[in-house]
Amino acid sequence: MAKQEDQFKKVISHAKEYGYVFQSSEIYDGLSAVYDYAQNGVELKKNLREYWWKAMVQMHDNIVGLDAAIFMHPTTWKASGHVDAFNDPLIDNKDSKKRYRADVLIEDYVAKYDDKIEKEVKKAEKRFGDSFDKEQFLATNPRVLEYKEKGAAILARMGKSLENEDLADVKALIEELGISCPLSGSKSWTDVKQFNLMFGTKLGASAEHATDLYLRPETAQGIFVNFLNVQKTGRMKIPFGIAQTGKAFRNEIVARQFIFRQREFEQMEMQFFVRPGTQKEWYETWKESRLKWHLSLGLGMDNYRFHDHDKLAHYADAAADIEFKFPFGFKELEGIHSRTDFDLKAHQEFSGKKIQYFDNEINENYIPYVVETSVGLDRLFLAVFSNSLQEEELEDGSSRTVLKLPAVVAPNKAAILPLVKKDGLPEIAKDIFDQLKFDFNVTYDEKDAIGRRYRRQDANGTPFCIAVDYETKDDNMVTIRHRDTMEQKRVAIADLKSIIDAEVNMGVWLNKAK
Amino acid sequence: MAKQEDQFKKVISHAKEYGYVFQSSEIYDGLSAVYDYAQNGVELKKNLREYWWKAMVQMHDNIVGLDAAIFMHPTTWKASGHVDAFNDPLIDNKDSKKRYRADVLIEDYVAKYDDKIEKEVKKAEKRFGDSFDKEQFLATNPRVLEYKEKGAAILARMGKSLENEDLADVKALIEELGISCPLSGSKSWTDVKQFNLMFGTKLGASAEHATDLYLRPETAQGIFVNFLNVQKTGRMKIPFGIAQTGKAFRNEIVARQFIFRQREFEQMEMQFFVRPGTQKEWYETWKESRLKWHLSLGLGMDNYRFHDHDKLAHYADAAADIEFKFPFGFKELEGIHSRTDFDLKAHQEFSGKKIQYFDNEINENYIPYVVETSVGLDRLFLAVFSNSLQEEELEDGSSRTVLKLPAVVAPNKAAILPLVKKDGLPEIAKDIFDQLKFDFNVTYDEKDAIGRRYRRQDANGTPFCIAVDYETKDDNMVTIRHRDTMEQKRVAIADLKSIIDAEVNMGVWLNKAK
Repeated sequence: MAKQEDQFKKVISHAKEYGYVFQSSEIYDGLSAVYDYAQNGVELKKNLREYWWKAMVQMHDNIVGLDAAIFMHPTTWKASGHVDAFNDPLIDNKDSKKRYRADVLIEDYVAKYDDKIEKEVKKAEKRFGDSFDKEQFLATNPRVLEYKEKGAAILARMGKSLENEDLADVKALIEELGISCPLSGSKSWTDVKQFNLMFGTKLGASAEHATDLYLRPETAQGIFVNFLNVQKTGRMKIPFGIAQTGKAFRNEIVARQFIFRQREFEQMEMQFFVRPGTQKEWYETWKESRLKWHLSLGLGMDNYRFHDHDKLAHYADAAADIEFKFPFGFKELEGIHSRTDFDLKAHQEFSGKKIQYFDNEINENYIPYVVETSVGLDRLFLAVFSNSLQEEELEDGSSRTVLKLPAVVAPNKAAILPLVKKDGLPEIAKDIFDQLKFDFNVTYDEKDAIGRRYRRQDANGTPFCIAVDYETKDDNMVTIRHRDTMEQKRVAIADLKSIIDAEVNMGVWLNKAK
Repeated sequence: MAKQEDQFKKVISHAKEYGYVFQSSEIYDGLSAVYDYAQNGVELKKNLREYWWKAMVQMHDNIVGLDAAIFMHPTTWKASGHVDAFNDPLIDNKDSKKRYRADVLIEDYVAKYDDKIEKEVKKAEKRFGDSFDKEQFLATNPRVLEYKEKGAAILARMGKSLENEDLADVKALIEELGISCPLSGSKSWTDVKQFNLMFGTKLGASAEHATDLYLRPETAQGIFVNFLNVQKTGRMKIPFGIAQTGKAFRNEIVARQFIFRQREFEQMEMQFFVRPGTQKEWYETWKESRLKWHLSLGLGMDNYRFHDHDKLAHYADAAADIEFKFPFGFKELEGIHSRTDFDLKAHQEFSGKKIQYFDNEINENYIPYVVETSVGLDRLFLAVFSNSLQEEELEDGSSRTVLKLPAVVAPNKAAILPLVKKDGLPEIAKDIFDQLKFDFNVTYDEKDAIGRRYRRQDANGTPFCIAVDYETKDDNMVTIRHRDTMEQKRVAIADLKSIIDAEVNMGVWLNKAK
């Protein structure tokens, strides 16, 4: 646990130090759970977005894009259920005036049982030494079993009360468990209340004339309300998909884990419209296809797993997450949901406009069913970034920090480095920069010894370093160094473009993602 | 005028019919002055954004990118002056309860003088026929001169009153002119009040605990508050730039002209940090460079002009617009502003943190000066789209609608069309699609006669059509048709990639933009 936390701290500080992620408005002491993508981060994020877009839109002749506005007609959110049901149960401590998510307070309480179990395990390990069988111990030790049971009972009661909207019992549970405010230690609590997570704003000049708007809490609805327009003007035939990337906003009370859960975040969603009855098939197809796409980035299958939902949202008839092994454990990276006809039907009802598709293969009108794939771009960024950050022991006993980003999404594809800052070498290096810049994002660096510059580009995540030395003047060749292997090779300047292209070309990587 | 309006209506309806721009939330009867980019529009917008990004960031080794959040610490907007001064003067009609911008009411009144002048011109034209000298008439006719003078006097008085924040006189002017509510005809007006254009929202769970936030009204401040972090972690040396694209929001009361003035819009801004005293030089450099970039899209110099500002904003020591000839006349497309050290200085003052740069060439600490280039992406979209939409008379007497988008930004680069929907031609066409899709956005279309499909792709803006016919089966060749010339040529399937690439490659176009 401590090691994980340590690694996560390294990720966060590396992200700042190497220009990937800054705390928003840091000079004003920051804005909680909001982050800015810095000069390298913006490129990584752009590349990940583009890699997704090409895989979803460009590679499929039956998927098109969309870019709906963040502002939408407020009735959209009544139809989608967000006005009524997109809530968190909140509770205030009367003494500290601090506000908490009631369910998180209870979950944190239960997490203490896990700590106690961990302690029992450590004690037993010490006692039994090499002969200790952890699995058996966890399955049989009476104290461990008691802790497990107690925790499970608490979570079960909470789940039931939340489901029945019995908020009084959630409060009663907090009081019975003697949960105190982490800040003040006080056990004096207000009632639990539901709080809507949508950010509101007002369109128009005054309270009197204003329309209440929400910042969209998900991008999906922009696709649903445009379904008919896209289908008709794009002459789309079912099955077909509409893909969209864009910002969404949630007024999270407890936002944490760096960019994993932000108040402003970016989604990459694709809604695939299918004939009713075929949704399960498509759901399986998209689960497989999306996992393949993630695997194409080369982070290794060990980092991914499916989590099939037992409990389904009101709109879904099947749902699974692709989970990724983040520095804080396996967590949701992408959701694949079979959303039935819930959304289109709701918009038909609330708008009074027919949302139907005429399927001329079976000569029938119907409301299409929908299979959704939904990735959090910020989470994808964190997955790729945290997994790529590595500390390597070298043969000579020294170590290096290297950011082994997949070359296809790395911010800079190559750094052009003159060996020294004189004798015409910078001019040659800049000339190479000028040749390559039309095709790739490249960078130029002349400061410090070449070894130090290599290390800096390793930490920056740049896949190639191109060194210009005195011999270059004679033979028009340079040394190209590969970030991951540290191998160096002498190549002709004229070949640089094709050498780099072979490693970073998105088309080549997409071919692997098929 | 009527012809212009007509052309503009055509632009708007073509944008909807061919999947470029939809009214937001149309099934809920729309959200005023908010638009969604449809399946073709999203690609055109993405391509324009990318073309700008590559020109600004990838082509310059001293310009880096940034992607700051829409949410920023609220003090940002105090420092920038937006909380105090980002206002419109509004007035309500007491009978209709309708709200107007006071300055727009007055401007619309003055515009009636222009209509009167137009009438006088027409009358005189009729009377004098071929011998009519319009220029001379406008310069000498007593009635025309009277109208001109009256209009100018009204605008001058309004300008002065607004500058002095004498809102009572703005109201007095409206009453003296006898301006009535366009809706009700009533002349009963409330006082004029200043209204802030920023959208507000609340971060946090309740009114009590909430922080007042604004949706950023411009992206520039995200760059300024991150100046130190970027400069230090990116090891940037002055002069250098930070570029950013992203959404901004303004609660415009009078929003009109389609996507030209929206409540939610996207900016593409670059802030270039320079040594104090050198800003005028850089200002001229960027004016020239930005115009070149626009010209590289090939819409023709006639469509652009500079408009140098006489009156400068409080933060600027020089400012100019690049104006474009929209269907409704020449209007601002991009602004180039020499912003001095106003913003960095303000953030230094409000944050209490030193924002200084040590210039080791002159051994001095200073707050850098800033030259800004700021394009509206939606306006750029409208400029390119409206200019590209053309009605052509053909040699055979028929006509065609063609959307002559610059190939580099066209949504689809090629359409693959089997001559007929049988005999294995669709399979060959799909195979070509599968070969090209890794490199380009391409589309497949098999419905309707080939001539009709050509016309459809013309109207869609697709630069190339690739027709697969019976001979293709024997010779592995296809007919490639060029949208603009309608020329057809027989080429090998194997050569398609390089033929298309030569015309659409962004690097090639960027080379022209230098």
